[in-house]
Amino acid sequence: MWSVALIGAGRMGALHGANAARDPRLRLKYVVDHRGESAAALAGSLGARPADLATILADPEIAGAVVASSTDMHLEHCLAATAAGKAVFCEKPIDLDLDKARAAAPQLGDAPLLLGFNRRFDPDVAALKRALDAGAVGALETLHIVNHDPAAPPPGFIPTSGGLFRDFTIHDLDLARWLLGEEPVELYATASCLVDPEIGRLGDVDTARTLLRTASGRLCVISNTRRSGYGYDQRVEAYGAAGRVAIDNRRGDTVETATEEGALRSSILPDFPSRYAASYAAEMDHFADMLAGGARPRAGFADGVAALALADACDRSHRTGRPVRLQS
Amino acid sequence: MWSVALIGAGRMGALHGANAARDPRLRLKYVVDHRGESAAALAGSLGARPADLATILADPEIAGAVVASSTDMHLEHCLAATAAGKAVFCEKPIDLDLDKARAAAPQLGDAPLLLGFNRRFDPDVAALKRALDAGAVGALETLHIVNHDPAAPPPGFIPTSGGLFRDFTIHDLDLARWLLGEEPVELYATASCLVDPEIGRLGDVDTARTLLRTASGRLCVISNTRRSGYGYDQRVEAYGAAGRVAIDNRRGDTVETATEEGALRSSILPDFPSRYAASYAAEMDHFADMLAGGARPRAGFADGVAALALADACDRSHRTGRPVRLQS
Amino acid sequence: MWSVALIGAGRMGALHGANAARDPRLRLKYVVDHRGESAAALAGSLGARPADLATILADPEIAGAVVASSTDMHLEHCLAATAAGKAVFCEKPIDLDLDKARAAAPQLGDAPLLLGFNRRFDPDVAALKRALDAGAVGALETLHIVNHDPAAPPPGFIPTSGGLFRDFTIHDLDLARWLLGEEPVELYATASCLVDPEIGRLGDVDTARTLLRTASGRLCVISNTRRSGYGYDQRVEAYGAAGRVAIDNRRGDTVETATEEGALRSSILPDFPSRYAASYAAEMDHFADMLAGGARPRAGFADGVAALALADACDRSHRTGRPVRLQS
Amino acid sequence: MWSVALIGAGRMGALHGANAARDPRLRLKYVVDHRGESAAALAGSLGARPADLATILADPEIAGAVVASSTDMHLEHCLAATAAGKAVFCEKPIDLDLDKARAAAPQLGDAPLLLGFNRRFDPDVAALKRALDAGAVGALETLHIVNHDPAAPPPGFIPTSGGLFRDFTIHDLDLARWLLGEEPVELYATASCLVDPEIGRLGDVDTARTLLRTASGRLCVISNTRRSGYGYDQRVEAYGAAGRVAIDNRRGDTVETATEEGALRSSILPDFPSRYAASYAAEMDHFADMLAGGARPRAGFADGVAALALADACDRSHRTGRPVRLQS
Repeated sequence: MWSVALIGAGRMGALHGANAARDPRLRLKYVVDHRGESAAALAGSLGARPADLATILADPEIAGAVVASSTDMHLEHCLAATAAGKAVFCEKPIDLDLDKARAAAPQLGDAPLLLGFNRRFDPDVAALKRALDAGAVGALETLHIVNHDPAAPPPGFIPTSGGLFRDFTIHDLDLARWLLGEEPVELYATASCLVDPEIGRLGDVDTARTLLRTASGRLCVISNTRRSGYGYDQRVEAYGAAGRVAIDNRRGDTVETATEEGALRSSILPDFPSRYAASYAAEMDHFADMLAGGARPRAGFADGVAALALADACDRSHRTGRPVRLQS
Repeated sequence: MWSVALIGAGRMGALHGANAARDPRLRLKYVVDHRGESAAALAGSLGARPADLATILADPEIAGAVVASSTDMHLEHCLAATAAGKAVFCEKPIDLDLDKARAAAPQLGDAPLLLGFNRRFDPDVAALKRALDAGAVGALETLHIVNHDPAAPPPGFIPTSGGLFRDFTIHDLDLARWLLGEEPVELYATASCLVDPEIGRLGDVDTARTLLRTASGRLCVISNTRRSGYGYDQRVEAYGAAGRVAIDNRRGDTVETATEEGALRSSILPDFPSRYAASYAAEMDHFADMLAGGARPRAGFADGVAALALADACDRSHRTGRPVRLQS
Repeated sequence: MWSVALIGAGRMGALHGANAARDPRLRLKYVVDHRGESAAALAGSLGARPADLATILADPEIAGAVVASSTDMHLEHCLAATAAGKAVFCEKPIDLDLDKARAAAPQLGDAPLLLGFNRRFDPDVAALKRALDAGAVGALETLHIVNHDPAAPPPGFIPTSGGLFRDFTIHDLDLARWLLGEEPVELYATASCLVDPEIGRLGDVDTARTLLRTASGRLCVISNTRRSGYGYDQRVEAYGAAGRVAIDNRRGDTVETATEEGALRSSILPDFPSRYAASYAAEMDHFADMLAGGARPRAGFADGVAALALADACDRSHRTGRPVRLQS
Repeated sequence: MWSVALIGAGRMGALHGANAARDPRLRLKYVVDHRGESAAALAGSLGARPADLATILADPEIAGAVVASSTDMHLEHCLAATAAGKAVFCEKPIDLDLDKARAAAPQLGDAPLLLGFNRRFDPDVAALKRALDAGAVGALETLHIVNHDPAAPPPGFIPTSGGLFRDFTIHDLDLARWLLGEEPVELYATASCLVDPEIGRLGDVDTARTLLRTASGRLCVISNTRRSGYGYDQRVEAYGAAGRVAIDNRRGDTVETATEEGALRSSILPDFPSRYAASYAAEMDHFADMLAGGARPRAGFADGVAALALADACDRSHRTGRPVRLQS
């Protein structure tokens, strides 16, 4: 059993905290949050204690810190925990400022830091990756990633979100890097505000298409919207020299009702907590692997910086209307 | 080119006549019907001539007769055409009276007679049969045949129909014989009148389940209803020692609409003319094979008698509430 | 929190014990098994204590007993626990001997006893039931239940299993009763030994089809095999006056690989622990509802007796080759 | 009955000629081809006569000309037939040279000219269009068009093809225009040579992704490859304010085989003649509508020029690595 502390008692904190509490190899000892009541409530429900940051950093029993604080605190908490000798599992993104993130490379570049790109831990995505690696469709040529949120966030979320690319597309950019097996050398992004004009007034977009290209000519399309109207659409198609391998959405149940109107299947899973529940648990268990046996993080600091650099480039491409060359 | 005559200008006659007219190896020369106007109208639309039975039997150019008259005339027309040296393609059933049908064996047993069990010519059913024959799922063990009509026939159809088993289930009984590769040795049928009480008052049923059993223990379920409410449901599942091979319904189009209610696919094909169009054309072309090269009929007189015997047994089982042993 | 004891540390005991240990409202205090080592090992892994039956019956803190002992001990353990004032969650079947089971009615008929017909707790099955109850396809007319095990059990399991109908079909018989909304008044079962001749030598069958009929004429087909060759096939189709509502299998992942051979989807879930994991957890949580608030068991003693009576009738029908009338 | 002449006896000529011969309202009178033997052979098989161009232009009985000559002759044949007062059905593209095509506007801009963008006549595509027009998913926001050829053409085809965008993508560009309901104002295309290096040596590409954007911000992705490895992949997804409506591939048969490897469905249709057979027949029948009642062509000269202009822009975008602004 490895003792861990959770930093951040918000929505993602609650999700990760519950997984830590359930993991047979982990013991969730502390919950830290500057909003003391939130920390106390979450700690209470998970059998942990509220604490302040200094306490957990000083406690030699704490082997790992799960950072689920607000995005602007991610880097600071990662640095503090790393400095105190703790392994870190940090929710994405590593930061919204690329320069600031890069500046942390000396401290974090080689640290045992797992970055929360949870798609890599999803059973379906992982099975797709295994199929590709096993050559199920020959050499990979192109990718198509669909990431459509069910409904737009409240406008209040937009200003501190980093914008669609850094907040949302970043998952797909990481997934593309992981599946393509090559770094993108160029990208082009175009985006619109079609869902909610308020998002546009706040300087953001809600609908985007991004094209990535690698040195060998592999192509990847990323499709994003903030509001699908039909659930949380999460699909990946990979095309290779010998065919196509793809993963599909999952539904809440398998009921199909056929009447004279046609055949109606139940909706796809509605949101990320339901769709990616297994991925978050597997991610936490991978953190236990890191604590227990020194496993290398499946997604680390460098992946976080690379995805952020791509998200920045998407934003720049969209704003300038031009493709962006990426330095490798 | 082989010249053929169509006997019967009703719904099935129109369907078979059009296929004969379109077949590149056949020439539809005559249409016969005691309702002269019907014969003239159909002949006119298909580039043929109306004629009476004697004319076509006497015309040495006529190589084949397509019998699509009313069921009670099937045998008589088959006998007349066979006696005149014509090959025959007769719509199912061969007759509704098993003894009467059996009595025609001396004349028809070895005649070039194709009986209209069109399922055997459906591309999906034929592909299923090839998969089974190729051992795709090992030795066949069980079958499940779904044959659900979209909507109940008008009550006026019932009294001369022969009843659900002889009129409708007979297709499935032939299909079961063809796919099982063994004759049933026992069957049990149970049926209800759930769709339209008028059908019950007329002494018939509208919903049935039939269980067949072969000597080696293979089992087959046949599922029938006169009214599905969702289209013309035509499915077959075959289970073998190594798995399951099945065919599914086809839809009018592939449109799927996903909204917050779920994902709605378009209806399955609505009726037998749309669902089995390809099978009827292939069946007519098989008749051309018989005329051209002496191909053996894929379904012949003996198959028609065997299926009728099974339909009789279904009816008896349902009426007595007991399984029926079949003599091989 | 309600304290419960687990009686039986075998495969089903381990499954139910883990769910009890995970349920937020339950505390698994004891594990009882005459094989002391098994009890100790399972108790240890679940944070409970091994104990003997007398201890748990005498402990006033124990509110409920989970009976997962060998089938021949189910009734005895249910009676003992009930006599001691405990609520009981008993794995199916209640017994293999119908007379013996019925004799326990005075003690168990009104007891708070949940019988482990887990299908009723499966999210897909439950969603199907809700759709039917909501009239999604009008008045129910017919049912088709597929329950195909992936691979035959070892022959050693057969002699004490009660045979295919009492051991395996019993789940479907309960499901049919639950979904039909009417008691069957007649059934017919036919069965073969096609999978493993050794099963036949032991007097059992491995492939069966059962037809149920209710007073109003509703029909139900149950399809069983001990070995599908393609996974654990669990499907239900319900046909009503206005259409069809069905649930389908679930797959381990959603990967589909398309090559020139066709499009290959991953296998359906392989076995009951994977397929019905959610149902077992929901069933245990329903037991917590019973303990906490006196909820009526969704499946109780009378359901266990009724399903056993139907299984007996299936066996009799198969052996006599005749339909069996059921007394209501 | 309207008499028509076919100009061009190659692969597309044979396809259109057969549809003209089968259409109940058309009579295929002549087949023209500078390769006299080809014209004679095709004419013979279709019940028509071989003829030279002057003959058909001079024959007052000829109401329409079907132009399926080599691409470089399309414009010339359209101009000649139009000048002779014939209605024209011309296979796509109108030409490979945008300036040359535009120069024909005075003669062809208002002529009764149907351009062979057959997707608009496909039953599935047409059903998708109807669903969009009926508001099935609210206001359209984005499109995803997949057009993947099964296998690369022989290299000898490349030099006169016009390149991937003008030869192949042009179908999708027309489809995008038709479905978007707005003209694209900007596009970006990126392409690779991943399938066959010989295609690259000939200056062409075989894999491309194109992004279109309309004035109101609607986005469209077009996905192309010359070789899918798994059949002729033809899908369209349309996303609106209230959901997603999509059409899927069709398969040769509905057989699914489940074994322990998984569930294998038969391949999707392998090529454009099988996939789009119904669309070509419907297109010819639409030409009969034009002849019979003066129906406006569903796709005309201006559509041919507009799609060619977009294909040119794709090519330019790919070659310059920059998005291209389109003048409306």
